[in-house]
Formats: sequence, structure tokens, C-alpha cells
Amino acid sequence: MNPAPIIILVRPQLGENIGKAARAMLNFGLTEMRIVNPRDGWPNPSAGPAASGADVVLEQAQVFDTLAEATADISHIYATTVRKRGVTKPVLTPEAAAGEIIGANGRSAILFGAERSGLETEEVAVARSIITVPINPEFGSLNLAQAVILCAYEWSKHQSLASPPKVELDPPAPQAELDGMIGQLFGLLEGRGYFFPPERTNVTQQTLRNLLTKPGWNSLEVRTLRGVLRSFRD
Amino acid sequence: MNPAPIIILVRPQLGENIGKAARAMLNFGLTEMRIVNPRDGWPNPSAGPAASGADVVLEQAQVFDTLAEATADISHIYATTVRKRGVTKPVLTPEAAAGEIIGANGRSAILFGAERSGLETEEVAVARSIITVPINPEFGSLNLAQAVILCAYEWSKHQSLASPPKVELDPPAPQAELDGMIGQLFGLLEGRGYFFPPERTNVTQQTLRNLLTKPGWNSLEVRTLRGVLRSFRD
Repeated sequence: MNPAPIIILVRPQLGENIGKAARAMLNFGLTEMRIVNPRDGWPNPSAGPAASGADVVLEQAQVFDTLAEATADISHIYATTVRKRGVTKPVLTPEAAAGEIIGANGRSAILFGAERSGLETEEVAVARSIITVPINPEFGSLNLAQAVILCAYEWSKHQSLASPPKVELDPPAPQAELDGMIGQLFGLLEGRGYFFPPERTNVTQQTLRNLLTKPGWNSLEVRTLRGVLRSFRD
Repeated sequence: MNPAPIIILVRPQLGENIGKAARAMLNFGLTEMRIVNPRDGWPNPSAGPAASGADVVLEQAQVFDTLAEATADISHIYATTVRKRGVTKPVLTPEAAAGEIIGANGRSAILFGAERSGLETEEVAVARSIITVPINPEFGSLNLAQAVILCAYEWSKHQSLASPPKVELDPPAPQAELDGMIGQLFGLLEGRGYFFPPERTNVTQQTLRNLLTKPGWNSLEVRTLRGVLRSFRD
């Protein structure tokens, strides 16, 4: 299987945000973090508590002085930016980027800039593609961990861990069982003079049948309802 | 267009998390929040600062005493849960739920439980479907705002606001321009005795041609490179 992308935080400011990014990553199965020139040095005591248990990501995080060193072994570099920059590179959604990363030959990495300022133009320049999260044009306020989580989430969709939990729902009851219940109901209603005037009986029964067909009740539910109906017998 | 889903926070504990949820919503164009029985009452002074400017969501938020009141006008209720509960309802990913919500007739709402405990079984019971974010089975630690943002993000993909930013990339130069450059290079290399032994010339040129075709340089880039090559003339 294609290796998971590396998350590279470039000049992150707060240890707390590094921890939150680690937590965001591990939620979706990403474990490799690199940190370029963190403002407050490394390790940072604020990172651990914010990681909420994703310590393994922080413990294995590698720290570099320069972006060039951090990306030396990477074949496919993606730069996340909020707005379109004055650079002409393909701009991908996190979804499209995840699709590329899954199919790529060689390691991929996604760069995230400093919390306040984002990536500098020369940092974006090392990437072949840009990732921009499509966002409310009137309110764009994604923080670092949120940007990380959306990229990790989209990547995880391609992984087996992301398979939706399977719930085996009982299928709707066979038609005969439903018909049995409907017949029981009609019998009860007839006994109570519900179908009036008599010439409307067919139409009314059709209405009820449609209504009772819609839920797709399973056998157990049908049996339960028959029990309910039985309680209405005189 | 189908109305946007309403985000219903059920028994939220911290005002800060209500604010963060508002911020997460507005990033992806959701504005309607309902709050059921917030632990610390409402308004909550911690919510505003955490919303980072998404005040409009908080100001318009409606507060209810019970979930029944908060969902009285909703046709399609989704309950978010971390794990599969002992209930038999369809379990959807945020992606699948977004697809349903977009196509649904009537208002939809997504329920999020208290930070610590999530939704209670009887709260889940009012929903026709469950939304579960597929997550790392060995580390599931999504906070409230993150769960909200993933649902809002998936919904936003169907909206026009989510259209990926368009960047008009210059197309690769017409083949004649690329050939001109390659011919220029081959001429230069020939003059320098690069093609040796002579019987390998064709193979070597093929290798170079493949290599130079790969980038898909545009016309301007090809012209720039021809300038570079010109500088190598004796």
C-alpha cells in the first residue's frame, strides 16, 4: 500500500497547536509529523496535553532547521494555503489531493504554515500543487488543527480503517407477513365500521396499504405490531 | 435549493465549545444552531470569544428545554455517535449523510451530544439515521467542534460556495515549440560530442526527449529554457 502522507508543520508558533495537529492526525491514522523551525523550540511542554493521548505522534516527530531538509526525501509536496497565491500551480481540494496521494509513487507530504501567517511564498514554491479547503468566502477561519484534520480525514477515506461501521439491519419482512398484518388491521377496522361510506373502502384501504408499506418494517417489528393490533380485538 | 441542515447541540457543557462549533459551522456556510438545555445556561460569555467572529451564528442560536421542542419542525434527524450503539438504524458517514440531506425534502438537523458523554440512547432514538465518522479504531478522539466541522464540510461540498478555486494554468506548449527547444538542445550537445558512442545517439536522444516531454512546460517556460540553452552556445 502507498505510504501515508507526512504532515510538515512549518514554523508553528504554539506548542498547543502542534499537539492539536497530532491529535487530528492520529484520529485519521496519520502518524508521521515533521516540524520545521518551531518558534518555541522542541520539545514543547504545551504540546503533550493538547494532543489528548496522541503522544506517539509527538514522540516520533522529527524537527528540522529548514524546509529543504524536511522535504529532502519527499517526492510529492503539497502546500496548504487559504487563498490563491500569486503562483501558478494546480489548486486541489483536500479530496482531490487525497486521491492523488493514494495513487502516487513515492512519499507525499503536506505543508502547513505558521498559525498566523501561513506559508510564505518561497515555501509554497517547493510544492508542485496547492491544497485549498473550499470555504465560506465571507468567513474563512480554519485553524491549523482543522486544516490538518480535513486533509487527514480525506486521506483516511481511502484506507481500510475508514470503512464505515457495518450495521446489519434486518431486511423488511416478506410481503406475506406484511399482508398478514394489513389483513388483520382491515378486519379490525371493518368490525368497527371504519370503512364508511362503503364505496370508498377500496380507496381507503389503498391509502392505508401505502402508508404501512413505507416503513419497511422487519419481521420482528411486524410481529410486534400484530401484537398491538391483537390488543384492539373486542 | 434544499435548506441547510440545522446543527443541534444537546446538553453542551462548555460555552467555549459552543463558540467553536459556531465557528466550524460558519466556515462551511451553516448558520442555524439550536441548543438544548446547555449546562451553563445561555447566553454564555465564553462562547463569543471562541467563535472567532462567527457571532452571527451565536446571536441567532435558539435555545430549547427539550430535544422534542428543538426537533419539532424537523423532518430528517441525524444523530452523531462515536460508536455503534445498540440501536438498529442505518449508520452513515458524514459524506453519505450530506448526500441525503442535499436531496431531502423538508428540513434536516444533525444532533451532537454533550462533550463528555455524547448523545444518550433516548436522544439517538429520535433520529432515523446515525452519523459516525470513520476513525482510527485505536485512537478515536474527535472533539465536538471537529465532529461539527466534518459534517459541515461534507455538506458544503454540495454547495456552490465550495467550488474549488479556479486557477487558469497555461497549457503545455504546442509540440512544435517543444520540438524546437529539443532540436536546439540536441544541436548543442552534438557540437560538444555528447552523443558517444555514435550508435547510441538515437537511444540517448529518446531518453532526453522523454525527460523533456514530462514537465508539460508552457510556451513561456519553453521560451525561457531556449534562452538558457542559447547561453550555452560557444
